[in-house]
Amino acid sequence: MPKVAQRVKKILSGYESDNPGTKGNLARILMHGRLGGSGKLLILPVDQGFEHGPARSFAPNPAGYDPHYHYQLAVDAGLSAFAAPLGMLEAGADSFAGAIPTILKCNSANSLSSNKDQAVTATVGDALRLGCAAIGFTIYPGSEDQYELIEEISELAEEAKSFGLAVVVWSYPRGGMLSREGETAMDVCAYAAHMACLIGAHVVKVKPPTEAIFLEAAQKVYDNQKIDIANLTSRISHVVQSCFNGRRIVVFSGGEAKDLKGIYNEVRAIRDGGGNGSIIGRNTFQRDRKDALSMLDTIIQIYQGKL
Amino acid sequence: MPKVAQRVKKILSGYESDNPGTKGNLARILMHGRLGGSGKLLILPVDQGFEHGPARSFAPNPAGYDPHYHYQLAVDAGLSAFAAPLGMLEAGADSFAGAIPTILKCNSANSLSSNKDQAVTATVGDALRLGCAAIGFTIYPGSEDQYELIEEISELAEEAKSFGLAVVVWSYPRGGMLSREGETAMDVCAYAAHMACLIGAHVVKVKPPTEAIFLEAAQKVYDNQKIDIANLTSRISHVVQSCFNGRRIVVFSGGEAKDLKGIYNEVRAIRDGGGNGSIIGRNTFQRDRKDALSMLDTIIQIYQGKL
Amino acid sequence: MPKVAQRVKKILSGYESDNPGTKGNLARILMHGRLGGSGKLLILPVDQGFEHGPARSFAPNPAGYDPHYHYQLAVDAGLSAFAAPLGMLEAGADSFAGAIPTILKCNSANSLSSNKDQAVTATVGDALRLGCAAIGFTIYPGSEDQYELIEEISELAEEAKSFGLAVVVWSYPRGGMLSREGETAMDVCAYAAHMACLIGAHVVKVKPPTEAIFLEAAQKVYDNQKIDIANLTSRISHVVQSCFNGRRIVVFSGGEAKDLKGIYNEVRAIRDGGGNGSIIGRNTFQRDRKDALSMLDTIIQIYQGKL
Amino acid sequence: MPKVAQRVKKILSGYESDNPGTKGNLARILMHGRLGGSGKLLILPVDQGFEHGPARSFAPNPAGYDPHYHYQLAVDAGLSAFAAPLGMLEAGADSFAGAIPTILKCNSANSLSSNKDQAVTATVGDALRLGCAAIGFTIYPGSEDQYELIEEISELAEEAKSFGLAVVVWSYPRGGMLSREGETAMDVCAYAAHMACLIGAHVVKVKPPTEAIFLEAAQKVYDNQKIDIANLTSRISHVVQSCFNGRRIVVFSGGEAKDLKGIYNEVRAIRDGGGNGSIIGRNTFQRDRKDALSMLDTIIQIYQGKL
Amino acid sequence: MPKVAQRVKKILSGYESDNPGTKGNLARILMHGRLGGSGKLLILPVDQGFEHGPARSFAPNPAGYDPHYHYQLAVDAGLSAFAAPLGMLEAGADSFAGAIPTILKCNSANSLSSNKDQAVTATVGDALRLGCAAIGFTIYPGSEDQYELIEEISELAEEAKSFGLAVVVWSYPRGGMLSREGETAMDVCAYAAHMACLIGAHVVKVKPPTEAIFLEAAQKVYDNQKIDIANLTSRISHVVQSCFNGRRIVVFSGGEAKDLKGIYNEVRAIRDGGGNGSIIGRNTFQRDRKDALSMLDTIIQIYQGKL
Repeated sequence: MPKVAQRVKKILSGYESDNPGTKGNLARILMHGRLGGSGKLLILPVDQGFEHGPARSFAPNPAGYDPHYHYQLAVDAGLSAFAAPLGMLEAGADSFAGAIPTILKCNSANSLSSNKDQAVTATVGDALRLGCAAIGFTIYPGSEDQYELIEEISELAEEAKSFGLAVVVWSYPRGGMLSREGETAMDVCAYAAHMACLIGAHVVKVKPPTEAIFLEAAQKVYDNQKIDIANLTSRISHVVQSCFNGRRIVVFSGGEAKDLKGIYNEVRAIRDGGGNGSIIGRNTFQRDRKDALSMLDTIIQIYQGKL
Repeated sequence: MPKVAQRVKKILSGYESDNPGTKGNLARILMHGRLGGSGKLLILPVDQGFEHGPARSFAPNPAGYDPHYHYQLAVDAGLSAFAAPLGMLEAGADSFAGAIPTILKCNSANSLSSNKDQAVTATVGDALRLGCAAIGFTIYPGSEDQYELIEEISELAEEAKSFGLAVVVWSYPRGGMLSREGETAMDVCAYAAHMACLIGAHVVKVKPPTEAIFLEAAQKVYDNQKIDIANLTSRISHVVQSCFNGRRIVVFSGGEAKDLKGIYNEVRAIRDGGGNGSIIGRNTFQRDRKDALSMLDTIIQIYQGKL
Repeated sequence: MPKVAQRVKKILSGYESDNPGTKGNLARILMHGRLGGSGKLLILPVDQGFEHGPARSFAPNPAGYDPHYHYQLAVDAGLSAFAAPLGMLEAGADSFAGAIPTILKCNSANSLSSNKDQAVTATVGDALRLGCAAIGFTIYPGSEDQYELIEEISELAEEAKSFGLAVVVWSYPRGGMLSREGETAMDVCAYAAHMACLIGAHVVKVKPPTEAIFLEAAQKVYDNQKIDIANLTSRISHVVQSCFNGRRIVVFSGGEAKDLKGIYNEVRAIRDGGGNGSIIGRNTFQRDRKDALSMLDTIIQIYQGKL
Repeated sequence: MPKVAQRVKKILSGYESDNPGTKGNLARILMHGRLGGSGKLLILPVDQGFEHGPARSFAPNPAGYDPHYHYQLAVDAGLSAFAAPLGMLEAGADSFAGAIPTILKCNSANSLSSNKDQAVTATVGDALRLGCAAIGFTIYPGSEDQYELIEEISELAEEAKSFGLAVVVWSYPRGGMLSREGETAMDVCAYAAHMACLIGAHVVKVKPPTEAIFLEAAQKVYDNQKIDIANLTSRISHVVQSCFNGRRIVVFSGGEAKDLKGIYNEVRAIRDGGGNGSIIGRNTFQRDRKDALSMLDTIIQIYQGKL
Repeated sequence: MPKVAQRVKKILSGYESDNPGTKGNLARILMHGRLGGSGKLLILPVDQGFEHGPARSFAPNPAGYDPHYHYQLAVDAGLSAFAAPLGMLEAGADSFAGAIPTILKCNSANSLSSNKDQAVTATVGDALRLGCAAIGFTIYPGSEDQYELIEEISELAEEAKSFGLAVVVWSYPRGGMLSREGETAMDVCAYAAHMACLIGAHVVKVKPPTEAIFLEAAQKVYDNQKIDIANLTSRISHVVQSCFNGRRIVVFSGGEAKDLKGIYNEVRAIRDGGGNGSIIGRNTFQRDRKDALSMLDTIIQIYQGKL
């Protein structure tokens, strides 16, 4: 077993109440891959097939229909962890046992639904039998079903912690009073990240915030207190601050497919703002393997401060 | 006990996370009957009485009012398995113990209901006491109740797997935003099959897809990526691909009663597209026994590549 | 203990999956009273007070306010079993212990409600502590709450069977798309009986069907297949056929109070159509004791083939 | 331990299915206080604060803000039992342990709600740890939530009985199709009492019925059968009859504050009609202690047949 | 361990039914800090981030983004306890173990929701593993979801008591028929406090009441009984009276940010009216640390009767 790096020990020290099992699993992720020990993370999530269907997810790079492709890509790219719904993990759990930490995504939505909810599709028991390091769960702050989603993850999280697993929360504001713009507004994004921390998440995943402010009551505070949200770097810092001033790990999703320059700039802002890393799905698996590996290599080098 | 055939071993190797109990039950089905060892399946489902009532189901061939008739037919035709709701299995479980693998259909709908839901009518405990090899469950992707259905099968599946049973999911898009045409559209069918795999099904049952595309966002991808869905064989291949690129067994329902030629052509397309088999109810039990046996014999020969 | 009659053994052989406890309790009912051993049943149900209130139920014969009256009547008339809600059984369970098999009605509705649902008011545990031979449960196929009712009885039935109790299902189509006429239509009644069997009931209770056909899709089948439903006897036969071709016991309710001739004719039709018996409440306890005993005597003689 | 009086033994004999624990607790109540052994009961309920708020309940006699006041009053007046919600019993459970039987009111409503439901606020476990003799529970026959209320008390009652507690049901028709007048109509009141018995209550509490008849179908029966409901005494008798012809204890609430003469006349009618007693809250604790004791003394003497 | 002061013993004597564990935890809070032993309490609650978002809560004093800041402030100011949601307590539970009693806030709402409900986000098990002295829970008397909230805390409270924890209820009238003014009206506030006591709370938290009366039926009583509610002191007394005449601890929230003079006057009224203390969040952590410590020092001195 490798010695746990100082930067990782520093991060783990923020998780005061967790048992050695959970801390060990956080360490497994933080010490794995090319970013291991740096305090930065790069995670591959593949739940797109559930959300958008197989063709929209994998037709651009048909190798992705096979779950092994993603496992192997995450291993070969030296990523920190691989996150996916139950069936996809089941399909490679043995072949890739021990090869990369896995995160079992425990709920999912689909494009055939119009309500802002998700179905619970896996349990802590599933995560344990599959040897996962963590469970993942999406909440939709703002939606009509948000309190039920929060109660579901609260129950799962308590169980996960008792069994030594880590808890990753996708906190995606959506529905209810929220406009499309509001979903990624600065105040709403920081709020979503903060709530995930209060619920007890170890790792929070949010979208990179825009400079919009959605809630009127928040606008006043952002104005009066002159909170700096002028550029993405400062906005990332504000999200990190909202995550218990850095005591919780926060990673940012890659969002819709964009060009490489756009991706790299976003990653630099995350790095410079103090974010802990990226979790990039579509932008990875919808390129062919060679291009994906090249892109991930560049992102890793950015997080390593080399680029 | 017969040695498990190479083709079956290959299929079983896709189920990396399952215990020997579940793999054994999948093998029981795959090694049974005249298609045993071929990697192909032919299953008799008799849940029509619940869905449409007894007269609409059995009056054309009144022998079918008796559960033993179906058990015996499945045995005599050399089928792979017999699937039915609780009461029907209970009525023959002892007489036909060991004669054919059974699949307990654990939920059902009826024609007196207007909402797109099903009632859970049997449990994993029932399946175990009846000696079944698998549980079966219907989900309606798209319906208002789809997330509850998905959560129900997720819970049942975890329990079934822990007891060494296999899980068969009927994935039938229905309700919500879906038009009648959309229910069997290519994109929706592949999506439904993929979701069943992600939920953790061992065997997926879908309807043969048409060449329609329902979701606008999907249309673009099918056009841009030039996905071949021109004929049923290529559409079947696309469904197989959507089932983890063939790592999961997918079988196709027979649909409404049609002429023999239509049935045989469909079976050939399933075979040539790489599908794992057929699950044919009405077209079987609504013919008289002699005709049904003859039809099943032909289908088996097609799957054997003899016709 | 009396030897179990051949006719009863034949009936019990249909219950292939049940444990000796459940078969024993079915035998207790089938071997009890003046019809014991004949394969026919006559059951006294007294849940009218819950459904219509005490005065509407018992004022015509005020002795019926006392639960002991019904127990004693069922004993003195030589009936097969006595069915009632929890409180009524509790009030005589000790005085009449061993005197007659009892069926605990586990759900009930009342006339102050406008929705087509019932409240669960007793459990399998209650049935066991009261020494009952079976639980009883009403479902309303067609109602907005039908799937919940079905799920409730499915759970109760599994538990009851595991403890060696028998399960009696009152299958009364009601609500939703059903017209008043549809509730007792031939197709709907046979459908209701068939569903109760598929759910796993040992004994099904339905109302005698009329010659109406409610569902359009069913009308075509009844016409095309020339199903004989011209008279009550043939309609009863069709219901018996829909109960797994006679592998399940089906009894018929007496319906609204009518004259004796009407009752006797109905019983003859049930007998001649192959039905297993009657379950007659109001027509029994709303007459004075002497008349009720006389009526029950006649019904028993009809079932014995003497009248 | 006092010998159980003959009249009490007679009453207890109606509870055929109960274990010695429950019978003992019923005996505790029936043998306690000045009416002990008479078969009559006088109970002090103090749940008014939950239903109407503290000022509306206790301002007329501010001593009543203190839970000990009510305990002491019940003891000093020689009542049969004291009934209250969880917090109020907790506040005196130790000081008055053994001094008077207590009934834990397990659900409550408040005046800030507009739906006809109650919240469950205490459990059988609470009753046991507080040394209560019984649990109390309100159902609202007729309300939209009535079936849920009935299911809640059914579950609580089964559990209470298994632990040797008695079950008291407040059966208060309300909501749904019921008019204000209908809530206390003769037919509805008798129906409510009967349902509580069928659900398995040991003691039923209803309001004294008026001579109104609410349900049309009932009107015909009351007319045709010439049921005597002309005066309160005969109406009480009809309620007693509806409680399994006297096999269940039925007590009557005092209703809104009224003058002493009105109260005494009502009590005489309850006594003469065969009712088992009174449960009087507001009329007790909203008078000052001296007046309350005097009133309770008179009521007791009426039940003793002295006045 | 310090000897428990006489005033605290007096308060504890009101909790007659609690086990030594719960009494010990109440004593821990009542004996802690500068008010220890005085029977008065000053609690720091930090759940604002969940209710209003991080920037609106902490931007005025950015040190507050860090959970340790609040723990340390509560310790340094000599407060009685620190209350916060799960994640915030988890982030300091080890560093501050034993330094100050903690209260785990088990449910929370957010500003993105429009319904008057809260999500349960922590459990009794969480409180135990974090070494908390009590759980905290908000109910919204009057809201459409009030009965569910009440049932949730009832269940949590029973469990908490069985494990020796204390129970603090935030009773905040809101929603349903309540106007904005009604939420803090005298009658509604006293009602809310009384209900929390009846549910079984050990400590009740309400807002200081205004002199408005909301419910018509209450207006009459307040007029007729000439209840003194002219000034805040008398209104506090009326709330104390409504809490079982002082047998339950009641503390008052600080409400919206106001000037120091306003705060101190309110605290004097609470003290003089017999209230047990204050629970002040925003007014504490939105000032800088020096000002906050100064303010808390003054409040403590007021409660000590020195100012």
